[in-house]
Amino acid sequence: MARATSTPAGAYAGRGMQIQTVGLRGLKTPVRVREKGGRLQHTIAEIAMRAALSEGSRDNCVEILTAVLNEHIDALSVTSFRFILSRLQDALQAKSVRLEMTFPYFIDKRAPVSDTHSLMEYSCTFSGGIGDDDGFILAVAVPVTTLCPCSKEISAGGAHNQRAEVTLRVKFRNFIWVEDLISLVESSASCEVYALLKRPDEKYVTEKAFNNPMFVEDVVRKVAVSALADPNITWFSAGVESFESIHKHSAYAYVDSRELS
Amino acid sequence: MARATSTPAGAYAGRGMQIQTVGLRGLKTPVRVREKGGRLQHTIAEIAMRAALSEGSRDNCVEILTAVLNEHIDALSVTSFRFILSRLQDALQAKSVRLEMTFPYFIDKRAPVSDTHSLMEYSCTFSGGIGDDDGFILAVAVPVTTLCPCSKEISAGGAHNQRAEVTLRVKFRNFIWVEDLISLVESSASCEVYALLKRPDEKYVTEKAFNNPMFVEDVVRKVAVSALADPNITWFSAGVESFESIHKHSAYAYVDSRELS
Amino acid sequence: MARATSTPAGAYAGRGMQIQTVGLRGLKTPVRVREKGGRLQHTIAEIAMRAALSEGSRDNCVEILTAVLNEHIDALSVTSFRFILSRLQDALQAKSVRLEMTFPYFIDKRAPVSDTHSLMEYSCTFSGGIGDDDGFILAVAVPVTTLCPCSKEISAGGAHNQRAEVTLRVKFRNFIWVEDLISLVESSASCEVYALLKRPDEKYVTEKAFNNPMFVEDVVRKVAVSALADPNITWFSAGVESFESIHKHSAYAYVDSRELS
Amino acid sequence: MARATSTPAGAYAGRGMQIQTVGLRGLKTPVRVREKGGRLQHTIAEIAMRAALSEGSRDNCVEILTAVLNEHIDALSVTSFRFILSRLQDALQAKSVRLEMTFPYFIDKRAPVSDTHSLMEYSCTFSGGIGDDDGFILAVAVPVTTLCPCSKEISAGGAHNQRAEVTLRVKFRNFIWVEDLISLVESSASCEVYALLKRPDEKYVTEKAFNNPMFVEDVVRKVAVSALADPNITWFSAGVESFESIHKHSAYAYVDSRELS
Repeated sequence: MARATSTPAGAYAGRGMQIQTVGLRGLKTPVRVREKGGRLQHTIAEIAMRAALSEGSRDNCVEILTAVLNEHIDALSVTSFRFILSRLQDALQAKSVRLEMTFPYFIDKRAPVSDTHSLMEYSCTFSGGIGDDDGFILAVAVPVTTLCPCSKEISAGGAHNQRAEVTLRVKFRNFIWVEDLISLVESSASCEVYALLKRPDEKYVTEKAFNNPMFVEDVVRKVAVSALADPNITWFSAGVESFESIHKHSAYAYVDSRELS
Repeated sequence: MARATSTPAGAYAGRGMQIQTVGLRGLKTPVRVREKGGRLQHTIAEIAMRAALSEGSRDNCVEILTAVLNEHIDALSVTSFRFILSRLQDALQAKSVRLEMTFPYFIDKRAPVSDTHSLMEYSCTFSGGIGDDDGFILAVAVPVTTLCPCSKEISAGGAHNQRAEVTLRVKFRNFIWVEDLISLVESSASCEVYALLKRPDEKYVTEKAFNNPMFVEDVVRKVAVSALADPNITWFSAGVESFESIHKHSAYAYVDSRELS
Repeated sequence: MARATSTPAGAYAGRGMQIQTVGLRGLKTPVRVREKGGRLQHTIAEIAMRAALSEGSRDNCVEILTAVLNEHIDALSVTSFRFILSRLQDALQAKSVRLEMTFPYFIDKRAPVSDTHSLMEYSCTFSGGIGDDDGFILAVAVPVTTLCPCSKEISAGGAHNQRAEVTLRVKFRNFIWVEDLISLVESSASCEVYALLKRPDEKYVTEKAFNNPMFVEDVVRKVAVSALADPNITWFSAGVESFESIHKHSAYAYVDSRELS
Repeated sequence: MARATSTPAGAYAGRGMQIQTVGLRGLKTPVRVREKGGRLQHTIAEIAMRAALSEGSRDNCVEILTAVLNEHIDALSVTSFRFILSRLQDALQAKSVRLEMTFPYFIDKRAPVSDTHSLMEYSCTFSGGIGDDDGFILAVAVPVTTLCPCSKEISAGGAHNQRAEVTLRVKFRNFIWVEDLISLVESSASCEVYALLKRPDEKYVTEKAFNNPMFVEDVVRKVAVSALADPNITWFSAGVESFESIHKHSAYAYVDSRELS
């Protein structure tokens, strides 16, 4: 979808149509992301981008995005993401640009007792704008275990528990590592989740969750307390969806730091 | 996940944790929706709900939601939705409640030449709150055809075209029919889409799209002009995702009426 | 996509291209399904259909499917489904026809202790052919609870448990009710799942699962034993996917009755 | 989900339950895949595995799978996949093992006129068994353009066209490259699809599709003719789903080489 010189679009211009944005969605591309440990991790990002273009610059967004990405996707980080935004704005002569990149991110975790290594996958999103909205949001989706306090209290044995997913989104002052956000979340649930557990590990996580019952609102509250305690985090939202083992629907809790009094 | 009287949650209460919300997601239930023509349409809604509960009322959200829904899902409309919110707030003794219901909605369309009837499916969402945020948003996702103006201009024959999906979300002063929002969108693309076309109809839609080339930003602009012209609509956003026939990714345009100058 | 009289398709006819099939996918339509209790349930089916057309009959599949469906979707059952297939074959003058309809299906369940009513949603598929393959398969996807025997045995308290989904597919001699297949599955897991539970019910399901630990292979085996014991069932497959609460991946077990010795 | 020594599973053993299989689903892991050009491509595979275990070997599938994968995922190919199967069977002491790995695969394509480079993403699946079923299936999902012959014939200008997805699955005698299967498919549609096109390229693909109208059954037939002509391919199936630009549903055609007369 390149741009014709005589686009009929002008016919509908009418009132105040200057701030609409145009771009693309669903473009996948290999990227390398800087890990906290220093290495570069190979992964695959799904990209959405849109820009408020001025009249004189109806160029091919995809071509420009591809060119700019190709310069920088070999070492993606919070820092280089901001640089990509700035380069895109220049290249597109845009009033504003928004860019979102979502990718699987792997961390080498060690099982709690046997210390066995395995790669655990998380979903991570870099999302930011330049121009009208200069915000940058880092988001992680982290699987955890929740164990129901009520079920434990009323039952003669056991307690229903299940996988849950915590989505934490933050704005921050300085640099922040994905790894640190994930740790913040993993320490806020009944137990964390692993790709590989031996039997002593399975005993450990079962007992840990059983001794640490939490409703979804308890998890969201604990995430919020940790996020509020970090002076580097200037805004956050946290949602916890628990795929209840006794229901077909999910329990859900949500908090936005702007609404906290 | 009923509520224990002695929840351990208090341990993390800390600073300003009053405005977190708790509820559910992914609950499906049959509903009947009032059509513009007066009939009631049977469909199936997926429901998300969350409420800011006060300390003394940690009851079972699902039980209360189910009871309130059962009174009203036999004739769902914009009007009854607001009543459901109000009843939920009372029953939960909640500071605020948010509710979202998404359902397939069928309209009996007639093919443009042969006048053949067929049922066309759209996705519709009622989304609203009471308490902190009294807004109500009606959203429709409408499939249409887009035909690329540039491709037509530069090619010796034909022009690439494809299915696109327009998502229009509106706030409004008085009552509004889903059917009218869908019509607004369908008249804003290269051509509208049908479930059943005979050969004279296929000739008609092919030629109509070919004579009416539009980029995604043209569609978004035409939707915006129509929405701005309706004094009943107080806010809207429109997104157009075009599943490009020459690419694997989508072209995308978006406008929010608050950003229009 | 109506058919031109002079299709260029013949150009590639080549060797043995008679048995290819053509049809449609992703068509949604409202249907009414006969319940075991006698009532008709309103739901929405997603339809896939394909037919081996003979050379002289390149008509519009969708038009014919729509016409045939409109005669019969007001009382869909295993019986009427077979009649639809036969009518489609006639109307399309096809050597063979395959049809698949998947729809949400709601059953009014009672909580185990409080006897509270609620609607529980299952996914159901009617899938069948006429011509080359006269088989009919009825499939249900049923959410259940699994509780890990190993975790219970090795831990000082509790046991990890989670939601699982059992997909049972059967061929049968005479008539069979969806309700009976769902019951067969629900009695084969650590516990069944409900849309609405009061506190005494939550105590009951927690304790039942804790006293009834099962691996995914235990569930699949118990489903298989019940299906083998039913002389009406002539073939089945059963898959159990358990959304492990201690992992991000699923445990999975599968059995096909043809492979049992 | 490790295995207890005294599993209660035996309680349901009953008739002929020897050939059930057990394993996992939804495990994601980074892999490197050998490209036709010789390089190793970094990508991320989603893995499903199941095995028919003999009574004495109820070990932790995930642990063994992880160990075996870790030896081989640095250079995945059709050849190493078969070796992984064999190693899994040994390590699990299983009668049979089935393994499936699905991953995005990128190919550096050149635009047809401007010769501009861009990375195009395809979905690829390695699926195979050892023991009862020694088959190996290579599958690719390839996006293409289809342009409707009927619409072109009956219309005064233009023709409806859209993105379609071709899924080709093959068994073969000797080695086969993913790249060659993708080429086979891309040369069988109205036009192939690109990640990046300049204006002369857009003119080219528009005109190529317009001059090359094909129904879904024409695409499936052309794929079948090419696959039949390759003596290395011993079985195939091909499905073409066309996301019609004038409908909300898809047109679909399918062929299985076993059914060709």
